[in-house]
Amino acid sequence: MTAAPKKVVLAYSGGLDTSIILKWLQAEYGCEVITFTADLGQGEELEPARAKAELLGIKPENIHIEDVREEFVRDYVFPMFRANAVYEGLYLLGTSIARPLIAKRLVELAHQHGADAVAHGATGKGNDQVRFELSAYALDPSIKVIAPWRLWDLTSRTKLIEFAEANQIPIAKDKRGEAPFSVDANLLHTSSEGKALENPAEEAPDYVYARTVSPEDAPDTPEYIEITFEKGDAVAINGQAMSPATLLTALNDHGRKHGIGRLDFVENRFVGMKSRGIYETPGGTILLEAHRGIEQITLDSGSGHLKDSLMPRYAELIYNGFWFSPEREMLQALIDKSQDYVSGTVRLKLYKGSANTVGRWSDMSLYSEAHVTFEDDAGAYDQKDAAGFIRLNALRLKLIGNRNARVK
Amino acid sequence: MTAAPKKVVLAYSGGLDTSIILKWLQAEYGCEVITFTADLGQGEELEPARAKAELLGIKPENIHIEDVREEFVRDYVFPMFRANAVYEGLYLLGTSIARPLIAKRLVELAHQHGADAVAHGATGKGNDQVRFELSAYALDPSIKVIAPWRLWDLTSRTKLIEFAEANQIPIAKDKRGEAPFSVDANLLHTSSEGKALENPAEEAPDYVYARTVSPEDAPDTPEYIEITFEKGDAVAINGQAMSPATLLTALNDHGRKHGIGRLDFVENRFVGMKSRGIYETPGGTILLEAHRGIEQITLDSGSGHLKDSLMPRYAELIYNGFWFSPEREMLQALIDKSQDYVSGTVRLKLYKGSANTVGRWSDMSLYSEAHVTFEDDAGAYDQKDAAGFIRLNALRLKLIGNRNARVK
Amino acid sequence: MTAAPKKVVLAYSGGLDTSIILKWLQAEYGCEVITFTADLGQGEELEPARAKAELLGIKPENIHIEDVREEFVRDYVFPMFRANAVYEGLYLLGTSIARPLIAKRLVELAHQHGADAVAHGATGKGNDQVRFELSAYALDPSIKVIAPWRLWDLTSRTKLIEFAEANQIPIAKDKRGEAPFSVDANLLHTSSEGKALENPAEEAPDYVYARTVSPEDAPDTPEYIEITFEKGDAVAINGQAMSPATLLTALNDHGRKHGIGRLDFVENRFVGMKSRGIYETPGGTILLEAHRGIEQITLDSGSGHLKDSLMPRYAELIYNGFWFSPEREMLQALIDKSQDYVSGTVRLKLYKGSANTVGRWSDMSLYSEAHVTFEDDAGAYDQKDAAGFIRLNALRLKLIGNRNARVK
Amino acid sequence: MTAAPKKVVLAYSGGLDTSIILKWLQAEYGCEVITFTADLGQGEELEPARAKAELLGIKPENIHIEDVREEFVRDYVFPMFRANAVYEGLYLLGTSIARPLIAKRLVELAHQHGADAVAHGATGKGNDQVRFELSAYALDPSIKVIAPWRLWDLTSRTKLIEFAEANQIPIAKDKRGEAPFSVDANLLHTSSEGKALENPAEEAPDYVYARTVSPEDAPDTPEYIEITFEKGDAVAINGQAMSPATLLTALNDHGRKHGIGRLDFVENRFVGMKSRGIYETPGGTILLEAHRGIEQITLDSGSGHLKDSLMPRYAELIYNGFWFSPEREMLQALIDKSQDYVSGTVRLKLYKGSANTVGRWSDMSLYSEAHVTFEDDAGAYDQKDAAGFIRLNALRLKLIGNRNARVK
Repeated sequence: MTAAPKKVVLAYSGGLDTSIILKWLQAEYGCEVITFTADLGQGEELEPARAKAELLGIKPENIHIEDVREEFVRDYVFPMFRANAVYEGLYLLGTSIARPLIAKRLVELAHQHGADAVAHGATGKGNDQVRFELSAYALDPSIKVIAPWRLWDLTSRTKLIEFAEANQIPIAKDKRGEAPFSVDANLLHTSSEGKALENPAEEAPDYVYARTVSPEDAPDTPEYIEITFEKGDAVAINGQAMSPATLLTALNDHGRKHGIGRLDFVENRFVGMKSRGIYETPGGTILLEAHRGIEQITLDSGSGHLKDSLMPRYAELIYNGFWFSPEREMLQALIDKSQDYVSGTVRLKLYKGSANTVGRWSDMSLYSEAHVTFEDDAGAYDQKDAAGFIRLNALRLKLIGNRNARVK
Repeated sequence: MTAAPKKVVLAYSGGLDTSIILKWLQAEYGCEVITFTADLGQGEELEPARAKAELLGIKPENIHIEDVREEFVRDYVFPMFRANAVYEGLYLLGTSIARPLIAKRLVELAHQHGADAVAHGATGKGNDQVRFELSAYALDPSIKVIAPWRLWDLTSRTKLIEFAEANQIPIAKDKRGEAPFSVDANLLHTSSEGKALENPAEEAPDYVYARTVSPEDAPDTPEYIEITFEKGDAVAINGQAMSPATLLTALNDHGRKHGIGRLDFVENRFVGMKSRGIYETPGGTILLEAHRGIEQITLDSGSGHLKDSLMPRYAELIYNGFWFSPEREMLQALIDKSQDYVSGTVRLKLYKGSANTVGRWSDMSLYSEAHVTFEDDAGAYDQKDAAGFIRLNALRLKLIGNRNARVK
Repeated sequence: MTAAPKKVVLAYSGGLDTSIILKWLQAEYGCEVITFTADLGQGEELEPARAKAELLGIKPENIHIEDVREEFVRDYVFPMFRANAVYEGLYLLGTSIARPLIAKRLVELAHQHGADAVAHGATGKGNDQVRFELSAYALDPSIKVIAPWRLWDLTSRTKLIEFAEANQIPIAKDKRGEAPFSVDANLLHTSSEGKALENPAEEAPDYVYARTVSPEDAPDTPEYIEITFEKGDAVAINGQAMSPATLLTALNDHGRKHGIGRLDFVENRFVGMKSRGIYETPGGTILLEAHRGIEQITLDSGSGHLKDSLMPRYAELIYNGFWFSPEREMLQALIDKSQDYVSGTVRLKLYKGSANTVGRWSDMSLYSEAHVTFEDDAGAYDQKDAAGFIRLNALRLKLIGNRNARVK
Repeated sequence: MTAAPKKVVLAYSGGLDTSIILKWLQAEYGCEVITFTADLGQGEELEPARAKAELLGIKPENIHIEDVREEFVRDYVFPMFRANAVYEGLYLLGTSIARPLIAKRLVELAHQHGADAVAHGATGKGNDQVRFELSAYALDPSIKVIAPWRLWDLTSRTKLIEFAEANQIPIAKDKRGEAPFSVDANLLHTSSEGKALENPAEEAPDYVYARTVSPEDAPDTPEYIEITFEKGDAVAINGQAMSPATLLTALNDHGRKHGIGRLDFVENRFVGMKSRGIYETPGGTILLEAHRGIEQITLDSGSGHLKDSLMPRYAELIYNGFWFSPEREMLQALIDKSQDYVSGTVRLKLYKGSANTVGRWSDMSLYSEAHVTFEDDAGAYDQKDAAGFIRLNALRLKLIGNRNARVK
């Protein structure tokens, strides 16, 4: 960073850490600070952030509190779910997918306010710093990004508290000590990691889970729901049409009730180390299962296998922070192209931690009972065709077999 | 098929259908028939197959009944699980992986007996014909493969029964009518498909499930087990070393009890149509979860992501019947190379249909609490490195951003 | 084929073989025949095909002769070149890419004439039958496709000539004997294979080459040309704007003159065998080199590497006949997305068999001399960033190194 | 770098730049310096480096000059060529593949001498720093790597010369000024980049080329050579067995004479910028063509297509410096597995810049004239099999076609 920033848009949660950052920015650079607080469905009241920002000296016109839940689900979560994206086999990318949207709004607000920098509260060890900054730089190559955790000397809880006290930042009683673990939440998921969870050999204690009941405490009777898709996106539950965020909220309620979507996971961070996280993705877990269910009857093998083979790469791009990259957009174009006929309804059974497809139907179905039937198929399929099919598929293998026998 | 076969090795289950095939081969070709009946863990008594074969005129020295369970798990199931292979996102390939072993033994017995052909009872619509035949041709390019279902005119249940009666083939009472669905079983899984299951919109009735209790009927209390791996293969449960087949059998018991491994699935067959199957893979589902769990701490991202990206192709090869192909062997070499350090123990919670990793530890772990800790890391990681890391990863995106802004 | 076709659209070249097919269709099925003769740039007069079709009894309104060169290059060749598609490392897919267009016109004419079938003259051993038929079935699942070479008993040259004579089909003198090899040509390439070329150990004789001078006979002085691209497609040569087919024709002239684009190749056919072909793709070879040249400065690594990694799959789809498949269209969407900024000009040196990029420039260039310069870069790039970049990329490798040292 | 290094092994060329580094290390850290000078086939006398090192105060026992050409070709170049590796479609990775070997020897010498650090002369903008350092860290996670170009303030030619003069470092007359471009050379290639070559629009002047005659100056008569392979590696030229380095040297002579292997290229560096290089890879270009030629008849499509699809990833790993990574080793295991039967001989025509396969033969050939022949194949292939093959491949497309027609 050559020159000090003059005006900074800060991703501000209203919590202690970002309040400290707010003050530190003012103190360090003497710069004007604009705050951006987004309702991504994290389940917290945001208006207190306004009062707090004002208390910390931010001008009212520099305080932005926005409900971005619909944009979040429609333009980020849903496109990602079209790909059935999971990172390293299991993680539904709940944190990863929220960062580009926040970065985009930070940059847009910077342009609106004539600010030359944006700032975030992610640490120097994690993935979020990468996601924020790659997104910001992609959207505005000349923007400055300030990551106080990599810059300041407030390297212990004690120093942070001292700084807060010295700067008249209110400290909630339960924030004086160290939190037993760190939490991130949005409409798609809640993640918990660090400290009490750092030993991957030990089962996470039940109090870590915030978004789901324990499967043991879930209802003893299964519940069935039906999710309807249009072109790869969920549009209705049990026949009732809903907006994207409304639908995901409703799925979260279903998932919470039935203890669905808990994941104890050790993952590879982009910055090179492994970390252990506890994830809860109640609605997303149901949605992924349902999307796979509707693709089962509406996608052919050529489309499905191509998507499947590229999914890990797509998921890795999102995890690593490359949402706003040309290669993610190229993959998105491929994936979206596959979803033209992914419409129909899936019936799922929710029960004590599981969401399982038990039925699916669609006007767009490629399933042909006429072909597959064990009964008389009325000539739909000539079994003798299989002989030629197999013999030509085998020809290469026979030539290899002959060669290998010849030369051994 | 130009000339009639003289001596045929038949994959013989002892059931009505393969007994009809046995007689049909004798009648159609006047050939000598050798029977091969394998114990793959399907859970049926095999000795009755001997008596039945004798009754149908097979010479005792031409009757082969073998327990291949250890070979099956050691040389087929375990190598496949090293890859975390699932077909189309969900299917654990339980039928697919058994066919190459059967084909291999058929060909070996053909060589031993000087037979010129092998025969199987798979129909002309399914994948199994492909798997049997590609395997047989790969192992012996000059072998003949006879698939009576593609050849004969016994195209209805009535005709089959008539043929059986005309040929003194005993018919169990419950085999006179049509079975409500078709079943395949081995130590890894049981699959059910066809007829009563042909409508993918309708939930499969509970009586279809043969290998697992319903999650609703599973114990109300979770059970914890620990699975130990060496170089990617499971070797012990709860500290007790077991042979491959013994271990999988024990996992099946755990899975059955807790209702784990049920799957209602619509898949794309290699021959071009979709079919719906109900799969039960109790032990395999636990094993897959555990293998992922141990890889989480023992595999780095480079290895893991490469494996992940190739898994769909590897699974497709197995599904399509290309086990004995050079490309499957190439992928196996890659996967096996990745497993050198995949050793350690995973702790799982089994509960009402779910098997979830809740802890994992290993002498070979790459997880470094020293690096990831939220606490002071004593210099293990310099957070300032992240700034350079991000800036160089962003450089390309900035150049793109500048270009796009310039030309738009 | 259950029922005989009533009306057939035949891909008719006017040559002896397809004339025999024409008559055979009439004789075998008593059906009406519509002929389709396309000018794909193969360099033959097509009007004689009209006279010949009339002579063989085809009604004038059933004779279609069309110049499809612009459509061929614009909608098939150019999209393929956006992908830099080569099959098995070297083959530019000149035959493969023409078949879908012919099949499409056959099906469209069938619809126009109310025909229930289409017919082609490809043999049962090659790829072209697959390409024709997969395309036709994809475009009209109910169409019948007749492949006389797989059906009739005219299995020797003698029998063909006898049939021709018996049916008053004129036979050019040079067609009585066997051709020394088989040729296919269109605006993109000429392929030669079979008979005299069947021994892959022997160099192809020079008389096989029809579209290019020998490099030894090419001018002793290099020629420089400049090709301009817009969004991935060539639009001008030496500053002169041209339509797609005009441009490819002009490049062919350049390539012919300089002996560019000869390939002696052994490839794997989709039907399982290897074959040896001699290909001449003069203009296409120049175009591929130029397209790579312009991508070098206009595509970033993320886009380019993603394209590169999918190219073999895309090329295989085209080679195997899956142009009209959803997966080809998905890949095309991805590739086309990458070409938005692939505009600019490439300078090439043509000399005795080689076409080499020697310069390239573009308003859309991502090349930044400011960054790469060995001179003072005025702060565009901070070399110290590289330290952090490397250290975080190395972190994983260090953790592996430590682990491996610990456990060995 | 926390503490100053005590003993450093320096990759020392004997040239001015690394001599300055040598002195700077002594001055900056007061450390003992060990020099390592490798003969990688760069074509320079290395003994002068010994005298120069001694002159600069290095103890004789701390000076290492080694001929590593055989190891280089056998363990690095040849394994890479088994993959047909090219970066971004065209670059044969000549610089990339040499760096891991140098880094490995630096680390080994560090262990031998009890040194705690290694040092290299690569700048902070390029790929080589990454390759050196990732290799070193992978082989010894605790080693320090010193990259003076990222550390010192000798940021202009003038300062470097002043430092040299102040430290009694002899300066050859032609080194006082700036070189017009930067050169790297080894047995596989020579690369030139920077300064005079920084404008990618301008053709590189002929004097840049050091390893090949201009195609225009190459012989007017083609030369034919035959290269014999065993398990994927070249072992003989024209029937004469040679060691790896001897063989590559001989191929370089052939390539030089015929002007083969020149490449004008703009590539994407790992550090995020584009750069333009002029590469000459005379022997390697011939070797790549020949290896592809022998694979054409000895590799089946399954193996070949799998290799092809992974090649870009493999090449990118080498380019980016991940030779000593588990994923490169996994890919190598896959590739090596494919080469078991890649033995035989390729005949090439060398002429004015081109090396083209014109014949290939092998005892291991999979090419079957019996199958492919246009003549009577004596029943090797039943053309009717193709009908079933096509119909089952088309089934999916037909189902899609029906669906799309139904719903549109």
